[in-house]
Amino acid sequence: MTTLRVELRNSPEKIRLPLGFSFSAIAAGLKVSGRPDLALAEAASGAAAAALFTKNRVVAAPVEVGRAGLLSSGGRVRAVVVNSGNANCATGHAGIQACERVCREAGRLFGVPAAEVFPSSTGIIGVRLPAEKICARLPELVILSARSHSQRGVLAFAHAIMTTDTRPKIASARFRASSTEGSKEVTLLGVAKGAGMIHPKLATMLVYLFTDAGASPRQLQSLLRQACDDSLNCISIDGDTSTNDTVLLLASGASGARVRDAGTRKKLSAALNAVCQSLAEQIVSDGEGVQHVIRLFVEQARSREEALVVARTIAHSMLVKTAWAGADPNWGRILAAVGRCGVPIDPSRVQIFIGDQRVCRNGIACAFNERQAHRDLAQPVCDLRVQLGRGRHLVRFLTTDLTAEYVRINADYST
Amino acid sequence: MTTLRVELRNSPEKIRLPLGFSFSAIAAGLKVSGRPDLALAEAASGAAAAALFTKNRVVAAPVEVGRAGLLSSGGRVRAVVVNSGNANCATGHAGIQACERVCREAGRLFGVPAAEVFPSSTGIIGVRLPAEKICARLPELVILSARSHSQRGVLAFAHAIMTTDTRPKIASARFRASSTEGSKEVTLLGVAKGAGMIHPKLATMLVYLFTDAGASPRQLQSLLRQACDDSLNCISIDGDTSTNDTVLLLASGASGARVRDAGTRKKLSAALNAVCQSLAEQIVSDGEGVQHVIRLFVEQARSREEALVVARTIAHSMLVKTAWAGADPNWGRILAAVGRCGVPIDPSRVQIFIGDQRVCRNGIACAFNERQAHRDLAQPVCDLRVQLGRGRHLVRFLTTDLTAEYVRINADYST
Repeated sequence: MTTLRVELRNSPEKIRLPLGFSFSAIAAGLKVSGRPDLALAEAASGAAAAALFTKNRVVAAPVEVGRAGLLSSGGRVRAVVVNSGNANCATGHAGIQACERVCREAGRLFGVPAAEVFPSSTGIIGVRLPAEKICARLPELVILSARSHSQRGVLAFAHAIMTTDTRPKIASARFRASSTEGSKEVTLLGVAKGAGMIHPKLATMLVYLFTDAGASPRQLQSLLRQACDDSLNCISIDGDTSTNDTVLLLASGASGARVRDAGTRKKLSAALNAVCQSLAEQIVSDGEGVQHVIRLFVEQARSREEALVVARTIAHSMLVKTAWAGADPNWGRILAAVGRCGVPIDPSRVQIFIGDQRVCRNGIACAFNERQAHRDLAQPVCDLRVQLGRGRHLVRFLTTDLTAEYVRINADYST
Repeated sequence: MTTLRVELRNSPEKIRLPLGFSFSAIAAGLKVSGRPDLALAEAASGAAAAALFTKNRVVAAPVEVGRAGLLSSGGRVRAVVVNSGNANCATGHAGIQACERVCREAGRLFGVPAAEVFPSSTGIIGVRLPAEKICARLPELVILSARSHSQRGVLAFAHAIMTTDTRPKIASARFRASSTEGSKEVTLLGVAKGAGMIHPKLATMLVYLFTDAGASPRQLQSLLRQACDDSLNCISIDGDTSTNDTVLLLASGASGARVRDAGTRKKLSAALNAVCQSLAEQIVSDGEGVQHVIRLFVEQARSREEALVVARTIAHSMLVKTAWAGADPNWGRILAAVGRCGVPIDPSRVQIFIGDQRVCRNGIACAFNERQAHRDLAQPVCDLRVQLGRGRHLVRFLTTDLTAEYVRINADYST
């Protein structure tokens, strides 16, 4: 039994590849730039699947089709087809038909029902998806993928799903699982793009997780929800949620280890938490115009839900976020945000810390080293702690400052 | 009976002065700039009063003291003392004592209980209020006020309560009230500062309304709440609410007209609505870094509350606000904000209009003149209409774009 390893570097030689999956990507002409925009992840012998989707009432066609497909296939996925450059959202019934056409065509090539092809799209909203362009390149993509169970394929996949991302987001973990059947090596790989809705036309957070552990769709769903609650559900750049957000977990079973074994389940859960946390951090630090990442700890809440309400209100306050952009230890804005969040807090029980220093004691100003607080906030990552004095629950929330660069990026676009 | 007149200009010769009030202002050394920062509004024979306060759980000392004073005096106010340059917030028990000391000293000068002096503060949070500086200048302020029932006094008052405001905000209305006791001329004057919490250290919206109609505190409270619901409660610049927000309505009764007369009440209500609406527009258009004011109409909601939830979500979306900064008719961002607001909308029933043009039909892209939409959004004020297809309720909400200038103003401050 080795200890859990999580590798955060995304150079090809550092990626851990789970057995049973291969990857490829191609430029299908959806991005104006001509960059790769069509990606395929293939499970040669199929995989069990679980997924989480955006909670927005406005959902893109691939979210509807993907959700229906998982239901119809009983949580079985043979291939994932992702395009960037077009979100296929607000496209009505024609958008659904275009997405279904892509799944049908990919299913035909793999010899499986369309429901076993999981679709994702990310890019501009309200523009027809050119399904014909995608279908025309699918055969080549399948041939490429069949030839490459390699780090190179993963990197190509990670690049092709990017929109305004400045770098691919990859994390992997490996552990040994011991059971009565012997010791097996299990690998988990995660690939992600975007962060909430951080771009004018190119929305969406997409996260794909691949493991060679064996599990049922139900077991995966439970593991996935738990891992996301503490990581991908606790990040925010601008508070806007996308119409296409998708997190998909696939398990090929090719390692021989099984999640029904308690030891394996525990380790896979730890690996999932670590990989999702790493991807969450990579996503936030690559947010548009971001200068500083804030690790916000909201503590002493009555419930986790209450802590989340406080964290989200602080993280979405434009006044707080602009103060962070200036590395300004302005705790008054944080206190005022806590005061308006709807939780019946007692200000005289609130403590606020920046870095290691207390800057507000019992809701009132207290002496602190302002230069040190300014220096702490000027770091790429700074810890900020708010204690509510109400209970024992806490949440760890990743967020960012709001810079003039963010405004420039998002204002300078014209439809 | 003349028709209702609302005068929006704030040049001294245009201000309508209600009988029974006088105004003065002075520089007491609270503002570093040395500008006037202490203002007095006096009702020589006292006035009935009603007030609305911030809903933030973190409230400044003057809000606590002012609320308690109104309760203790039975809604009677002899004088309003406002300081800018210091919010007296997050200052603990010492802050309450400092505020009470100012009220006690002013009460002594006027020969009334401290409870009949209504205090307000606006400025930096977490810094001790120098009550001694204020008390030292109160006698001079009282003498000045006694000598001036004039437009000049109102202007001085309006200037002294400013913080980051670039211009004073004044509106007045006058009407004739006819009853069995004959025809009387009634005047309403409104003076305001700020907008939500639009400045790093200088928070707060303060609104003071003065009328020479006669009314009980209870009658005033009902009129005030109704007028604010449709105006000052329907504006937002950044979604942050201040710890000091206060709206105060005083009625001297000096005109001889009484609100218990139904015709007078109706006209005063209309005058209050018009004056509050004008002040709301003046506040929003003077918001920090604001280039464009958006008049947002959310229609076809099940309830007014539901329409407000949708309006606030749109108005606080950083993605939507930055699109407005670029005059970008990006309806996808608006639709996505509607989708995440928590109201169970059906996207296929949503219509979005920019200016006179429909830009989204039944939740899907529709053809429109993009150059015209861009031109409409580039105006100082643009109408934007969102129809939910759920009911018959609507709200009119005033908001603004989010510019790089806003970020610069709010990031460049250092405590």
